[in-house]
Amino acid sequence: MVVTESISFSTQGNGEIVDITEQVARKVADSELNDGTVTIFSPSATSSLTTLEYESGAVHDLQALLDRLVPQDIEYRHNLRWRDGNGHSHVRAALFGASLTVPFVNKRLTLGTWQQLVFLDFDVRPHDRELVLQMLGE
Amino acid sequence: MVVTESISFSTQGNGEIVDITEQVARKVADSELNDGTVTIFSPSATSSLTTLEYESGAVHDLQALLDRLVPQDIEYRHNLRWRDGNGHSHVRAALFGASLTVPFVNKRLTLGTWQQLVFLDFDVRPHDRELVLQMLGE
Amino acid sequence: MVVTESISFSTQGNGEIVDITEQVARKVADSELNDGTVTIFSPSATSSLTTLEYESGAVHDLQALLDRLVPQDIEYRHNLRWRDGNGHSHVRAALFGASLTVPFVNKRLTLGTWQQLVFLDFDVRPHDRELVLQMLGE
Repeated sequence: MVVTESISFSTQGNGEIVDITEQVARKVADSELNDGTVTIFSPSATSSLTTLEYESGAVHDLQALLDRLVPQDIEYRHNLRWRDGNGHSHVRAALFGASLTVPFVNKRLTLGTWQQLVFLDFDVRPHDRELVLQMLGE
Repeated sequence: MVVTESISFSTQGNGEIVDITEQVARKVADSELNDGTVTIFSPSATSSLTTLEYESGAVHDLQALLDRLVPQDIEYRHNLRWRDGNGHSHVRAALFGASLTVPFVNKRLTLGTWQQLVFLDFDVRPHDRELVLQMLGE
Repeated sequence: MVVTESISFSTQGNGEIVDITEQVARKVADSELNDGTVTIFSPSATSSLTTLEYESGAVHDLQALLDRLVPQDIEYRHNLRWRDGNGHSHVRAALFGASLTVPFVNKRLTLGTWQQLVFLDFDVRPHDRELVLQMLGE
């Protein structure tokens, strides 16, 4: 059986990292499915999904890594062409990926104790974001 | 229901980035399934899949990032052992991953307006590449 | 149909890379399913999954890349807060991701000839690790 849902929230962009665990867990618990996988997909070219221990230290460290590896203030051809200043956002999104698949068992996500589902907004302005949640199971 | 397909194309390697959106979208539309997920998998150790706004600026910027973070011309033990010169290709492929899962609804991929599915060929020579497309749904 | 399994093994951490291909392949072959996808998920915030040619050169090169891009010995706020010394482990895990989805056909994983499934343990101490394997198919 296939169940397609969505979750929505607002972000400030600029590397904001949002903990979406509770929103996803609730959609899984409220579905008719007991066991299966949920694929979370961000229909955007400037944001990503991954897992992280969501505490202020690790959140900061991940943002600092991105500022070091994919800085905002170097030259991007995307910026030269489109003048929207988010060249680094596109490259970061491609590196981290827009898709995340997580198994659930007895309506519960199989996450570790210190592991959260996070959304990373790399764009340079605030957005209302909507993610696709698709559950396959029985 | 499970539907397994494949798509094929040729690349020059050396970081070429190929837009595979149309080929994947057609396989999804032509299947008997209406809703579900498609997993695209690259059965290769020197190539990857991700999403990207496929315009020449962002394509160049992603290639430039890879040349900066995972340069071709540093020492790789893989090259010392095998003399095939693609040590950087293996490391890049492991970093970006060989698998991508995308939901579809009413036979359409749930991609964003500016978001394409791309194949990244990191190897140092041309290849005929074949990707596995597996759709699960109803 | 959904089949949930697990695999277990011990690691030394500190960047150890474990080839889990055989363990996963056996679970797929021993299930009642012929065709479908297996999602492998690491319920941990300090480890990841990807694919790699599992030979000592490429294994070393990937570890060297991580030491270069995400060094252990720079300042991490996570370490300042929690004093557990694994700030780099958390950031590496977020970069590589905790989830991997691979199609199988006729009970066989669709991997390339030189491509293995690998687990990366970024934590700073030995662990007994257990991964979730969930197969969806028919």
